[in-house]
Amino acid sequence: MAVYTHLGAEDLAALIIHFDVGELTSAKGIAEGVSNSNWLIETTGKDGTPARFILTMYEFRIEVTDLPFFLSLLDHLAAKGCPVPRTIHDRGGALYRMIGDKAVALIEFLPGVSVSHPTPDQARAVGRALAQMHMASADFAGSRENAMGLAESRRLAEACGHGGMTQIDPALADLVDRELPLLEAAWPAALPRAVIHADLFPDNVLMLGSTVTGLIDFYFACTDIAAYDIAVTHAAWCFDAQGGNFNLAISAALLEGYEALRPLSAAERTALPVLARAAALRFTMSRAFDWLNTPADALVVRKSPMAFARRLQFYADPVNAGIFASS
Amino acid sequence: MAVYTHLGAEDLAALIIHFDVGELTSAKGIAEGVSNSNWLIETTGKDGTPARFILTMYEFRIEVTDLPFFLSLLDHLAAKGCPVPRTIHDRGGALYRMIGDKAVALIEFLPGVSVSHPTPDQARAVGRALAQMHMASADFAGSRENAMGLAESRRLAEACGHGGMTQIDPALADLVDRELPLLEAAWPAALPRAVIHADLFPDNVLMLGSTVTGLIDFYFACTDIAAYDIAVTHAAWCFDAQGGNFNLAISAALLEGYEALRPLSAAERTALPVLARAAALRFTMSRAFDWLNTPADALVVRKSPMAFARRLQFYADPVNAGIFASS
Repeated sequence: MAVYTHLGAEDLAALIIHFDVGELTSAKGIAEGVSNSNWLIETTGKDGTPARFILTMYEFRIEVTDLPFFLSLLDHLAAKGCPVPRTIHDRGGALYRMIGDKAVALIEFLPGVSVSHPTPDQARAVGRALAQMHMASADFAGSRENAMGLAESRRLAEACGHGGMTQIDPALADLVDRELPLLEAAWPAALPRAVIHADLFPDNVLMLGSTVTGLIDFYFACTDIAAYDIAVTHAAWCFDAQGGNFNLAISAALLEGYEALRPLSAAERTALPVLARAAALRFTMSRAFDWLNTPADALVVRKSPMAFARRLQFYADPVNAGIFASS
Repeated sequence: MAVYTHLGAEDLAALIIHFDVGELTSAKGIAEGVSNSNWLIETTGKDGTPARFILTMYEFRIEVTDLPFFLSLLDHLAAKGCPVPRTIHDRGGALYRMIGDKAVALIEFLPGVSVSHPTPDQARAVGRALAQMHMASADFAGSRENAMGLAESRRLAEACGHGGMTQIDPALADLVDRELPLLEAAWPAALPRAVIHADLFPDNVLMLGSTVTGLIDFYFACTDIAAYDIAVTHAAWCFDAQGGNFNLAISAALLEGYEALRPLSAAERTALPVLARAAALRFTMSRAFDWLNTPADALVVRKSPMAFARRLQFYADPVNAGIFASS
């Protein structure tokens, strides 16, 4: 969480002139995003009503060639009524602009705050918003491969190596060695696909009370199994930060909210335990790799891989098989 | 620049209830401040008009016992028409509240952006705002010793040691050894005093065009020689970031703006070169200490001490004595 690039008033004003949003009146670098820098900016507005926007500069890990997918997806979903910020196009209609060698986009500001301790009502609303998004994406023309799927988990496991994983936790290498081939063999490739968010942590959901006002940070969005997105969201919402204390009420509400709009098929529901293990493995491995490879002087706080290894153990434990059974 | 503490929607809502500002609708951690965490928050407002505030949590280096001075100073200056954010008192009238063992304050949001490359008109406006602040503080009841004065520069030089300074730059120890005793002997103790900002870098000034809309971040404010604040501001505004390229037009405009409201006495003007050297030394030493003592995994970017050592050399060079001569 950091702002990697300094943009002074002059840089910002020179950028804003290319958009029909009035004049810049405020800009605060915000502590969100690990692969981009973000500013909350205010302008006099196109019609004289002050307006706010998020200005995002893409710093690392995000390919400029993927930006049309991410940014037009926002437009598509917003047009369908999903609580998603629209992309503000520049005066020439472009989705993003360059400042030097870095791409920047101007994105609608949405109200709402991110919860730390969701209630079942909030989880139900998030499940519903996720289903709405999957359904709204059905006629979206773009597609993007999931760069963080099982193949990437294997690649990261090999990059970390047994030594690296053992350095993180003595039990990690064995867990990964057991799960990876098992999940590869059990992968339910034939399930319905959609554009998925793939990273819908509480940080990426804005809420007012129990209403979802914004799904944000779509920079892992991709075309993949719809139910896998439920699995990611489940892993992100139903445990405490350390990966303990599974919350059954949140889990049930999340699934119930999703199914209120998009009921799961029997095949999807049967696949959820495997998808949840794959989701937990995905964050275990990306965090393990970052843990071992983040320079000690980096501006980001390293997140514990074990918080997701514990979720993986939970999902893999037959004792917990019932949590995804039909309600 | 970081947000050190995670505050979820629940924490923020529980805090905001103690203020007459309506309900929380947005909160973004902002990348400002090295000794505190800050959030730009929005609420429904006390009268139904959406309102914005800066929420500050004091993390390091700031003594809670100093908060009444800092926060009531803002109220005093704002009441006198200075472009300074007011402190929002809680429903019980308190200037700050505690969240756990950390103090937090709610502060008025002001529009404006910080410039990187000031124009003379902007520097003139900053000089004027500084003079206005000094004059407005004359009847402020509070007082606070300057904890970052010459005595602290000596303490920091000793804490860094010759070895540490040489590690930063081979020439640094000699420069500090020469300047410290010279400035201690020449210190113009009898000059007029005021409440000074003591850290008025461009980052701490919000502007719209050439109008100062906000002086912010008063957490070094103290009672000291008024002209010393000019010296600090001069060192902060009249050079490029590396401490080279002195800008005479900015320097002249800054002093002219100040004197438009508060003309300097002959004694103050004569003292400016010594005060400017002390100001440059103060930032050289605090940066040198931080350079040597910031953990490699800290969330802050270390700032170069040599950028201010170069300013010190500039101010100490007799060739440049004329820059503070009466215009």
